[in-house]
Amino acid sequence: MKRPICSKATLGRLPLYLTYLRTAEIGETVSASHISKSLSLGEVLVRKDLNAVCGNGKPKIGYHTDALLKKLESILGEHHTLPAVIVGAGKLGSALLGFEGFDAYGLKIIAAFDSRIEQRDSAVYPMEQFTHFCMMQDVHIGIITVPVNSAQEICDLMVRSGITAIWNFAPCVLQVPKSVIVQQENLALSLAHLTLSVRGATINQEE
Amino acid sequence: MKRPICSKATLGRLPLYLTYLRTAEIGETVSASHISKSLSLGEVLVRKDLNAVCGNGKPKIGYHTDALLKKLESILGEHHTLPAVIVGAGKLGSALLGFEGFDAYGLKIIAAFDSRIEQRDSAVYPMEQFTHFCMMQDVHIGIITVPVNSAQEICDLMVRSGITAIWNFAPCVLQVPKSVIVQQENLALSLAHLTLSVRGATINQEE
Repeated sequence: MKRPICSKATLGRLPLYLTYLRTAEIGETVSASHISKSLSLGEVLVRKDLNAVCGNGKPKIGYHTDALLKKLESILGEHHTLPAVIVGAGKLGSALLGFEGFDAYGLKIIAAFDSRIEQRDSAVYPMEQFTHFCMMQDVHIGIITVPVNSAQEICDLMVRSGITAIWNFAPCVLQVPKSVIVQQENLALSLAHLTLSVRGATINQEE
Repeated sequence: MKRPICSKATLGRLPLYLTYLRTAEIGETVSASHISKSLSLGEVLVRKDLNAVCGNGKPKIGYHTDALLKKLESILGEHHTLPAVIVGAGKLGSALLGFEGFDAYGLKIIAAFDSRIEQRDSAVYPMEQFTHFCMMQDVHIGIITVPVNSAQEICDLMVRSGITAIWNFAPCVLQVPKSVIVQQENLALSLAHLTLSVRGATINQEE
């Protein structure tokens, strides 16, 4: 499995660059310093971002606007939206299913699956249909929002169904083949890190 | 506002160290290499983590077990749970309200607030009570899960109510005084970063 081509922070700024290149009046070439001034972003940062997606620009010229545009569109999936599915249609799963914002990254959560379907929700399907659905819709991205005690079982099902990238919200380490990547999401940890300064804990570092 | 004393990754491993120090039979001192072997973690990693929370250990001796324990307990809020509140009791807000896992970091989401209270949920309060509740309960951590068009208004209310750390799930940049820290959560970006490899985008990097 390839490593991501850029950091999460860089990826987060790519929609800005794409919108800028599309809306501003730019010639055949564009430089990192020009983009950095227009977007009020640090020049070093912009240079690093563009380098990650499109290699080094030419000295004193910069990038060919068209080439940069195409690269950004390709990474952000402008012409090729990737489908994803959720297993676990509880509160969190339903929240993600209804979330706007995936569009900007060429992603679409097209269905959720659950062993209990409590209400008539057209986007929530019974578990029995999972494998067939993934195969038919060519889905390779799965999101796990089930309780921890069934997470590994769901993970195994996903792998058998052709899922190669799993976003896991259950607080456990999943066992997967090497060809599958798992990203563990720990929301509690995100909040804890934010609140360290509120706690006012100090360190013994000499600096 | 102080910077966090350690990285999110380090913070994520601290509960492991705490549990280990409490359950294993350890003498008055303990070394990073001993902990690393016991937990099957890289020694460099453990050394870096412990250095961040408790400074350098003594050569060939390591850390005083008691001091290390106390430091971990203090950072993880073992004896001092911090309360947090949510504004926006929709699907995501409700999911966070019911989330287990904050305990390990000494955090507790004690209430959610919403302008519309649809069902009789004892942990969801009307917005009018927000400021009074925060003052009375000494709450300094706020979570925003409202739609983007009301996020800044809620943020302003939080600041006026004594909140100093805000975890923002609305996709917008919040304006706050310098004394307040904001962490922007972009769930779409997390998924997008994970799926870059599925997209198979490549880069022009020479390496």
